[in-house]
Formats: sequence, structure tokens, C-alpha cells
Amino acid sequence: MAESWVNHAERIGSDLHLELSAPGSRRAALIRALREAVRGGRLAPGTRLPPYRSLAVDLGVARNTVADAYAELVAEGWLTSRQGSGTRVAERTEPLRPAVSAPLKTPVKTPARARGPRHDLRQGTPDSSAFPRAAWLASYRRALHRAPNEVFGPGDPAGRPELRAALAEYLARARGVRTEPDRIVVCSGVAHALRLLFGSGVLRGPLAVEAYGLPFHRELLAAEGVRTVPIPLDEHGALVDRLGRERAVLLTPAHQFPTGGPLHAERRAAVVDWARARGGVVLEDDYDGEFRYDRKPVGALQSLDPERVILLGSVSKSLSPAVRLGWMVLPQRYVGDALAAKGEREAWASILDQLALADLITSGAYDRHVRRMRQRYRARRDRLVAGLAEHAPHIEAGGIAAGLHAVLRLPPGTERSAVQAAVRRGVALDGLAEFRHPDTDMPARDGLVVGYATPSEHAYGAALEALCGALPQGEARVPATPAPS
Amino acid sequence: MAESWVNHAERIGSDLHLELSAPGSRRAALIRALREAVRGGRLAPGTRLPPYRSLAVDLGVARNTVADAYAELVAEGWLTSRQGSGTRVAERTEPLRPAVSAPLKTPVKTPARARGPRHDLRQGTPDSSAFPRAAWLASYRRALHRAPNEVFGPGDPAGRPELRAALAEYLARARGVRTEPDRIVVCSGVAHALRLLFGSGVLRGPLAVEAYGLPFHRELLAAEGVRTVPIPLDEHGALVDRLGRERAVLLTPAHQFPTGGPLHAERRAAVVDWARARGGVVLEDDYDGEFRYDRKPVGALQSLDPERVILLGSVSKSLSPAVRLGWMVLPQRYVGDALAAKGEREAWASILDQLALADLITSGAYDRHVRRMRQRYRARRDRLVAGLAEHAPHIEAGGIAAGLHAVLRLPPGTERSAVQAAVRRGVALDGLAEFRHPDTDMPARDGLVVGYATPSEHAYGAALEALCGALPQGEARVPATPAPS
Repeated sequence: MAESWVNHAERIGSDLHLELSAPGSRRAALIRALREAVRGGRLAPGTRLPPYRSLAVDLGVARNTVADAYAELVAEGWLTSRQGSGTRVAERTEPLRPAVSAPLKTPVKTPARARGPRHDLRQGTPDSSAFPRAAWLASYRRALHRAPNEVFGPGDPAGRPELRAALAEYLARARGVRTEPDRIVVCSGVAHALRLLFGSGVLRGPLAVEAYGLPFHRELLAAEGVRTVPIPLDEHGALVDRLGRERAVLLTPAHQFPTGGPLHAERRAAVVDWARARGGVVLEDDYDGEFRYDRKPVGALQSLDPERVILLGSVSKSLSPAVRLGWMVLPQRYVGDALAAKGEREAWASILDQLALADLITSGAYDRHVRRMRQRYRARRDRLVAGLAEHAPHIEAGGIAAGLHAVLRLPPGTERSAVQAAVRRGVALDGLAEFRHPDTDMPARDGLVVGYATPSEHAYGAALEALCGALPQGEARVPATPAPS
Repeated sequence: MAESWVNHAERIGSDLHLELSAPGSRRAALIRALREAVRGGRLAPGTRLPPYRSLAVDLGVARNTVADAYAELVAEGWLTSRQGSGTRVAERTEPLRPAVSAPLKTPVKTPARARGPRHDLRQGTPDSSAFPRAAWLASYRRALHRAPNEVFGPGDPAGRPELRAALAEYLARARGVRTEPDRIVVCSGVAHALRLLFGSGVLRGPLAVEAYGLPFHRELLAAEGVRTVPIPLDEHGALVDRLGRERAVLLTPAHQFPTGGPLHAERRAAVVDWARARGGVVLEDDYDGEFRYDRKPVGALQSLDPERVILLGSVSKSLSPAVRLGWMVLPQRYVGDALAAKGEREAWASILDQLALADLITSGAYDRHVRRMRQRYRARRDRLVAGLAEHAPHIEAGGIAAGLHAVLRLPPGTERSAVQAAVRRGVALDGLAEFRHPDTDMPARDGLVVGYATPSEHAYGAALEALCGALPQGEARVPATPAPS
């Protein structure tokens, strides 16, 4: 998919070149050019736009100019933006408000928002129709009734003690984490944790990362001046013996994101040894550790050495990204720095949501919800595998033992056209190329990352059908008309 | 009060000098020295510690070392930390957990927290016992029931449209703000807004600020590499004709923080003219705009020119700092940049809290709560003024027409001893010196900043009594024994 952007960027670039030489700012020219490209159909609905940086380089404009233009077009409804998944052309491309600045007024209605794609199989979010509203409200009510007045005064940057105690107990039980509440710092999610740790000098770059990973994390780290150094992957996860002179490495040990499997046991031990020998630290992004289907969950790497591993987690996959709560489980020596950074510079996460989550966990409702969702997602995974076996038996699904997404492996060179075929059928998903570190020298893999958790239950069947219809035809699908004997 | 820290810092500094030459890290030595100073009683409960930077300079250690030591001692319960008001010695100085690293375990109980001072008259927070729990829960329940599923999916970095529409209507009605929902960006509070705007290059320093203001804001900006340039104040607010070559100025036009009155009408016009002439921008921190007692509220400066003023607000004073919600009302030209900065780098504020606040506002419950609190705080202010008239008639209270705090004006050179006398009586409050910009050349003012909103209703009388008992005795208080004629 990344390659397709070269094409798009060039096409836009040459158009823009004409526009950018016209009177007015480059920002305005870029907005016009992009708007025209969408309106004229050259950028189809669902199409992912190139990252700010690439387009800025292509066009010879400042990165902020591109960011600004994208944001303006998002506000206008031409584009949609989504954390971790970039900016795309909106499905509904009627302008939602005048492109020129409207006279000041106080509208009584909120503007309609652009709708998403018809079939959303992008990775990264749980089924938003499955949020446990009743259980959450019950926990929220109990927490609010029980809260002492001091809850409504100035807060502790570490987070509410009720939540840290509940997390310590839960993470020990569910993920094998070894910690205590005083080593847990509540934050808004894993991205927030990374920014806190690297933006305030608690940790310093360069940071080793897996050669395939979330571009959003790389970009966030780059914005904090942290260089990321890719280490290659094989079927057993990151080749940790390739770690260089970095002092910190970010891994997804339970379920490599996005390619699939857990980090091999020997490598788990090896990376902890590496951290001990170098005085370094392993950041464990435990992004979907609760969702394992076919065998016992892989415990957190953190348990191997709580003084050498920082565990990062959140409820973004287990509950909803709308509940902006995550956590860092820290070695003792980082607690002071993390609190100092957070206390001075950071807004705290919603105190009432923290109390509600603590109640949800201690009441057992969180476990019940996770179990229910695990069953639901396992059933969806099974339907995906069955659908492939029927309609595209030549395509293998990887990384399916756990998580909220699968990777459909494709023959070399076919990923880009497969993504485009999916977009034409109204299916939004990403190719593996989206997640590839630009500096890695490991051979590229072709594949589609299918987020099977994202659609609501009733929409999943149609999404699966559309996906199967868009997959490249294998040889096995050529109608074999046997010659009469 | 700042001067008193020189003393403290010197005392600690000389002790520490001995400690710091001992084996072990300077961090550990500093922690030991501070702990001993508290344990030995040289640093009394409630005492405010010097800012990181000052102590770091005094001791010749890195600023992070001091921050780290403070954070560690906060975690241990020796110190307490509070956003915007620095670090103080905890009232309860028994160590709450072992100073050395405890073996890893999962405690079943949360550790007790250090209690605050006996009488808390620090500025900055509303009465935490007055949070409208029932109204908030009702709004939260309605919002949760009404929320479409997409609420639980990936969010819009601008914030929920329901909240932005409610804020546009409310701010227009209550504060005279001229805007529309698409120009409002939801964030976690004013400090968060400043960090977003300056940390991501939406605005650039240097930033002109009032010579008296919140140290927390200055420190946050300094951490983002933004130099603040103080402009002097008189009884009509900031001397905006002293604005230099900066392109941005941060003001508190409705109620200068902390010294008192509103910005004079001529200066309101002048600063907007300045922004127009320089292509600059005014940041309006409308931190307590809703709380005006004796006359019609001063409308937001923003209404003079919505393209030249950024209004910053939050519910931290009107509801609680525990509800981590604030907003930026932006000129059109900054909206794109602010969204780009937020979308790429920032966690969003709690979506459910956003929906609850939107309901609280549109249902009228927010207005009712603000009116109720306005009456309560006005009554407290009246009691403060009456108490002063009776017990300390020589002391004048300033800045009392609005807000949640008053300034008790003191004779030159008496502030430090007045703060110390208050601390001895268990009253926590700040002297004006705490808020003075270190680079200003305007003459220092002596005064006590009395936050009369902070105590709960039943505790206010005792706090007031303790305060009055601690005030310096004026000549009028010398018993006048008339000579027999």
C-alpha cells in the first residue's frame, strides 16, 4: 500500500505544483488541490493519504503545512482522521460546511460528520456496539456515591489509589505481572505513556522497535526527537540478538503487532538478559494480551524481571478507546521521574472514569466483559478462517491465535492491488506495508491486516463477504473443467 | 514568601553538601537530606519547598535530580504535591512505606495518603464538597443512554460535537464569546491547552505574560522551550503598552490572577489593536470568569476580535479539577494546526465526561450549579471582609469583586512572616511572592493570597478564624488606653 502512495503523491504533487505557484499561501493552495482531487474523484473514498512527512517532502512544503491542510479538510468533511491509522478520503464527499470562513454565528445544530467506510475492517478498535453500558454505568454510579470529597480536589499524578490497587491485582491475576500499586502510573493510553516517558527525559532514544509496528508510535516518538531503529522479525517474533547499541526496546511480546505470533520463549529470556547486561529497559506494549483463543495466555514478559521491563497497557482494546485510560507498570527507578514528568506537565486522566474502572475491575464485571468479547472475537476469527477456506483457499491467515486482527498473507507484489480491490468494494483495511518501518532492510511481506473486531455484530457477515470477494483469485479458483475422458 | 525559601534552601543546601559528598547518588543523598529535614522538624508541616529550579541551582545538581527526589518523597508521604501550588511538607510525616524498595507483592489495601493542612486557604480549587454529584450522575446516565455506538469508536481530536455545540452556546450566553462549534477544541484544561499550542508549534515564543501569574504555567512553558517575558501591572491590570516584540501575550482579563481587578476597558481595546498591528494573538485565560459578585460580569475579551484572541477555559473552578475538561476557542487560522497537533500527539479527554458535561450544560444544571456556588462564594467573601474589619481593620482585601480568592495587602516586608505565622496556626496559603515572575522589574507587592473557595462549608469558619489570628497586628490594634483627661 505504501507504494501506491508514491503514485498518489506524485499525481497530487504535479497538480499542486500548478496550484502552489498561484497567488495565496501554499497551505491554501494545497487545500484547494486536495479538495479538487477528492471532488474530481481522483482520490477515491476510503483512500488513505500519504503521511504528512512524505507529502511535505514530495511537494517541498513544510510538514505543518500538510498537517494543517489535512486538518482543515477533515474539519470540512472531505477527509477523515483516525488515531493510528492516518488520514483518508471520507466516504461522503459533499462539503459539510462552506470552504470559506463563515460569518460568526452560534449554530443550534452540530454539523453532520462524514460517515466511515461501508465495511470497516481496519485494525485497532473493538466492536463499538459492544461497550458494556449497563455495567459501566453501575460501576460509575457506585464509584460516585462512594467517592470521598477529596476526589473532587486536586489529584495525584500517579492516578487514583483505588484504580492502581485494582490494576495491580488484575494484572497479576490475568497477565502474570509482578508489581504493586505504587509502581503503577495511570495515563490515557499507550501513546500517552510513550510520550510521557520519552518527552520528559525519563527515557532517552534511540529506541529499538520491531520492523513492523504502529506508524503512529513511530511518528509520536519522532516528534519527541526520538529515533527508532528497526529490528527484523521472523516467525518467532523480533530477532532480539540483533539489538544494537540502543538502551531501550519496544516490543509486542504477547502478539507481535501486526504480523502475528508471540515472541519465542528463548527470545523473551534473551531480551531480558540483554536489558540487564546493558543497563537497558524493555517496553512491553501489551496491547491485546487478554485476547488469546486457542491456548493459555502468554504471560507478560514483565514478570521475568520487573526491574527491567516497563509494561504498557490500556482499555482501548478491551473496553473502548473512548475511555481514555491506560497504565504504565514501572521499575522502581523510573517511578519518581515518571511522576515528576506527569505532575508538572500532564493533565490527569478523568478521575471519575478512573474510579469507575476500578469498580468495574473489582466487581468482576471487567472480567465478564473480556470473556464475552473473547468468545465473540473468537467466533469472528473462526468465520474469517472458514470464509477464506471456502472462497480463497489459497490465502493463509496468520496471527490468528490471538488478538483482534489477522494477517492474510499474499503473494509478493499483490498487496497494493488487493487493498485497492477491497476499497472498490467498500472495504477499508490496511496492507502490511503501512506498518513497515521505513529504515528496515528485512524483506517486505505482502499481506492484508484484517481487523475483525471493528464491525458491529450484525455488519460482520457482509464485511466478510465483501472482503472475500475482493481477494486475489488463486489458481485453485480457476474453474477446472475436466476434459471428457 | 519566595525570600523565605532562600533561607530554607540555604539550610538544606549546607546540610546536603555534607550528604552529597557521601557515597551514593546525589539523588539518594538529596532524598535522605530532605527526609531528615522533615523528620527532624526543620521543615515544618505545610512548609512549601523551593521550586526545582531554585534548589537545583542552590545545590549544583540537575533539575531532574530535585524533581525526582521530591517525587520520591511525595510517594513516600513526606511531601505533598499539588498542581499549580508546588510541593509542601505533608502534615502527617510518618513514612507511609519503607524508604527502601519493598519486595514485590500485591497489597490488598491502598496506602493511606498524607492529609492536607488543617486549614486549607490555598487558591486554585473550588469547594470539593460541593461537586454536584446528583446532577452530574443524571447527566452522565442520560448521555450514556443516548450515545450512539460510534461514541465508543475512535474519537475526533476536536472533541465531541455535542460538547462543542453546548460550549459555543454557553460561552456566547454567559461570557459573550463569539464563536461556533468548529472553532472549539476540547482539551483537559488550560495548562493542557498551553502545552498543545506551544509544544507543537501552533504558536511560538517568546510569550508576554503578566508580571504576577501562575508559576505552573511559566514552568510548563519553559519546559516547552518558550521564554516568558513579564509585563508590569497596575491597579487597572497589565500595562499592555509595554508589550515588546513578542507576537503573543497571555492575560487574565476578567480578573487578574492573582492580584485582582479586571483589565481596564481601554487596555482591552489596546491589546486587541496591538495584536492586529503585529499580526499577533492574545491568549485569554478565563479561569474564573463566571464568578463575579457585585456587578455584571466582564465579558470575554475574545468578543472584541475572535480572529485575534484565543479564549482558554475549563471546569476546574466551576465544577472540579477532577473533571479533566477544558476548551480552546480559536481563531479560524489556528484550528487546523491545533487539530493536527492534538490528533497526532495527544490523548483525548474522556469521551463520556464530554457527553455528560454537554448534557449538564444543555439541561441547565450547569448554570444552576454555578449560580449556587456564586452565592456560596460571595457569602464567604463577605465573611472574610467582615472578619478582617473586626480583627484586622488595618488590612485591606483586594480583588474581591470576583473570583475564588482575595489578596490581603500587607505592609512592605511583612509577607514572609505573615505566611509563616499562618503556617504555625495550621493555615496553608500563599504569599504574593510565589506568583511573581522572576524577571520582572516592577516593585514587589506584599500580600497573602487567600483561596476562600477551597475549604468545605463547615470548615470555613475555623479557617477564617485561624487566618485572622495569624495576621500581623496593625497600629489600630494596639490597645488604645486613653489617658485620663
